[in-house]
Amino acid sequence: MLNKEKEFSKVILCEYLLSMEGEDGKVKQNQMIVIEKNKIQFVGPVSNPLPKAKEVIRLNNHLVCPGLINTHTHLPMVLFRGLGDHLTLKGWLEEIIFPLEKKMINPDFIRVGTELALLELIKNGITTVCDMYFHTPVMAEVFESYGLRGLLAVDMLSSFSDWKEDLDSLCNQYGKENQRVYPAIACHAPYTCEPDLLKLSAEESEKRKIPIAIHVAETEWEVSEIKKRYGKTPVAHLKDCGVIGPHCVFVHCVHLSEDDINIMAETNTPLSYNPESNMKLSSGVAPILKALEKGIVVGMGTDGAASNNDLNLFTEMDTGAKLQKLKNPDKTIEAKDIFSMVTSSAAKVLGLSHRIGKIQTGFFADIIALDLNHPNLYPRNNLLNHLVYSASGREVDFLMCHGKVLMKDSEIQGVDEFRIYAEAELMRKTFFQ
Amino acid sequence: MLNKEKEFSKVILCEYLLSMEGEDGKVKQNQMIVIEKNKIQFVGPVSNPLPKAKEVIRLNNHLVCPGLINTHTHLPMVLFRGLGDHLTLKGWLEEIIFPLEKKMINPDFIRVGTELALLELIKNGITTVCDMYFHTPVMAEVFESYGLRGLLAVDMLSSFSDWKEDLDSLCNQYGKENQRVYPAIACHAPYTCEPDLLKLSAEESEKRKIPIAIHVAETEWEVSEIKKRYGKTPVAHLKDCGVIGPHCVFVHCVHLSEDDINIMAETNTPLSYNPESNMKLSSGVAPILKALEKGIVVGMGTDGAASNNDLNLFTEMDTGAKLQKLKNPDKTIEAKDIFSMVTSSAAKVLGLSHRIGKIQTGFFADIIALDLNHPNLYPRNNLLNHLVYSASGREVDFLMCHGKVLMKDSEIQGVDEFRIYAEAELMRKTFFQ
Repeated sequence: MLNKEKEFSKVILCEYLLSMEGEDGKVKQNQMIVIEKNKIQFVGPVSNPLPKAKEVIRLNNHLVCPGLINTHTHLPMVLFRGLGDHLTLKGWLEEIIFPLEKKMINPDFIRVGTELALLELIKNGITTVCDMYFHTPVMAEVFESYGLRGLLAVDMLSSFSDWKEDLDSLCNQYGKENQRVYPAIACHAPYTCEPDLLKLSAEESEKRKIPIAIHVAETEWEVSEIKKRYGKTPVAHLKDCGVIGPHCVFVHCVHLSEDDINIMAETNTPLSYNPESNMKLSSGVAPILKALEKGIVVGMGTDGAASNNDLNLFTEMDTGAKLQKLKNPDKTIEAKDIFSMVTSSAAKVLGLSHRIGKIQTGFFADIIALDLNHPNLYPRNNLLNHLVYSASGREVDFLMCHGKVLMKDSEIQGVDEFRIYAEAELMRKTFFQ
Repeated sequence: MLNKEKEFSKVILCEYLLSMEGEDGKVKQNQMIVIEKNKIQFVGPVSNPLPKAKEVIRLNNHLVCPGLINTHTHLPMVLFRGLGDHLTLKGWLEEIIFPLEKKMINPDFIRVGTELALLELIKNGITTVCDMYFHTPVMAEVFESYGLRGLLAVDMLSSFSDWKEDLDSLCNQYGKENQRVYPAIACHAPYTCEPDLLKLSAEESEKRKIPIAIHVAETEWEVSEIKKRYGKTPVAHLKDCGVIGPHCVFVHCVHLSEDDINIMAETNTPLSYNPESNMKLSSGVAPILKALEKGIVVGMGTDGAASNNDLNLFTEMDTGAKLQKLKNPDKTIEAKDIFSMVTSSAAKVLGLSHRIGKIQTGFFADIIALDLNHPNLYPRNNLLNHLVYSASGREVDFLMCHGKVLMKDSEIQGVDEFRIYAEAELMRKTFFQ
């Protein structure tokens, strides 16, 4: 029961609410969300009188749902957006990305890239990401100032800074209860990380109680390379190195054997599905329905914008669902299962299912709303299906993270977008000098 | 040379212009477009002084390009958006769409559906569509009043009205020079239209000098069914029935043999590529790169919103390009070739390449502009790639068709959107009564 005398921070009145509390994808009408500081205190039918609150936010003609969770990104790569789009993976990496990274990566590049990326995330309704890139402490500062939530994974292979120093810095400063930045470890891939480094990562992960994110079985080449080196698949190899389990985010998993799927299921290792990147780089189609059948937890990710080319989970849901329909003509795919890949299941992937991914009492107040007055959301035959197959991201005009309103009436609060655009352009002008 | 004394209708000043005049995808800066009534009189560098004009439209920080062309739609099906999305083609058609069509199709349904669809088209920068549905003269009236351009194909199989009457009515009223509605013939598919009807359609098409649109080789089932009935592939069968050639729009073409591709190339029969619908209905991946190699003209289409679920050629380009990358890992795909599938090549598909698809002197003034101040369009590494892989449609805030401004600052001119939304909702409430 809500305390009738207490004045809460905020009450949100929702004409339509998709809380994902029961993970059933049900939309309820005329609901209210009561928020105290950064947490949800109550979710239920609108009461009369309303609870006392410092601010009442009325979202008429809106669909309110949990802030979306992007389980795999390389945010600062937004600055490489649109480069080498005609190339396939090898040429794209070797001719474009690696030389540019070698030249460009420094704390300023990371700051500008992260700022530009966060604008895009907010406008697309994303409140949490799991990121792997460089100079992670710089990214953490930007997340702190913008108000978004991020698992920021320190690259164990980075040549730009010392992983131990970065990890110590993040672990000292962040990861505490009620913070929004969570330290994590990034191992690039089984073919770039030697077994000793993988084992060390597993030890660090266990010691510090933080997750590991790693690209796994992205290409056929990787699978055959790992088999050549170690006589087993990437998943089996990672298991042997101790990089396996519910704290490990296995990204891509395009080329999994039946045994790989069984290993991941038995060890409760979650999977990050990145359909658009896998298509764009000609990698293949991940066996998502098989993984789900075996009980593997699946979240979606956009990957970096340089191989996507956006940070938009609405279009990712649409494409990801359709790609599975193409791969599995005889199976039924429910929109609720796709939507959970960017909300409740995505939270499980990141080990945060007790705090985010649902609009539920005790959870962090990470909430977005879509303005339903867009032609592509009419008629309202099925709002959940519209979220997955019709919404493009433009409909999100309200975003709250950790109880703070970051976007209202489509305006990002307290950020000068034009300053960031200008800085991104200045950065671009140095790429080809 | 422009007449310096003459006062033109409009001058558009473009900071960035992608005219597609040379079909090379080149973006030029500081260009002007001079418009007289419904036609483009001049395209070139901004002059000083400017030509005299009744209205000067300054599109700073915008990318101006030709209005997009959607080569395959069933517009009124927007009203069925979001129904049966978990089903595959057979169940979706038989359990959901056919019974609803039988119950719902009448002129009022067609009017409301077309109005709702046109809002969505305008907001996504689409100025021309090729549509197949029912009560085509009703659709024509809506096109007339909204100001968009449409090839409206009369269904030869319609049980809702008489095809000859509808076709006579359209041909008498429309299709003249400087009009925006073009009559066409729709044959549903080789498996639903008997050979006699196909031959009759070919005759009517020749007599009236209007195009034929037809679904071809959409599913494996169709190919085997046609082989069983006629001992040949759908393409070969259509050739025998006279439904082949540059005036025929072959839609889908997912399952083409080498011979089919050769027949289409030899007869200059164009292809409408509908990647999102083909994925959603588990149909397969059309062999677009092979078709292009043989010189077949390819345009894109969204298909009806009920199997997509939107009318958005930006997301269609993105998905369509990625789907070909997935199918053809060893090939290079240029963004200009994808963009031409919604502009210059799409105009060729519809037999209108002398009038639309490019911003060029003598062409109709069908012009859109994207506001570049969106985070997903920064940095400006490659604006053409951004159009194909990053834009989501929300960036389009200006649209002109046939010389008339239909959307400005994201506001559709002279239309009460809320009236249409309300009518769409009223229509929905009758679906399941």
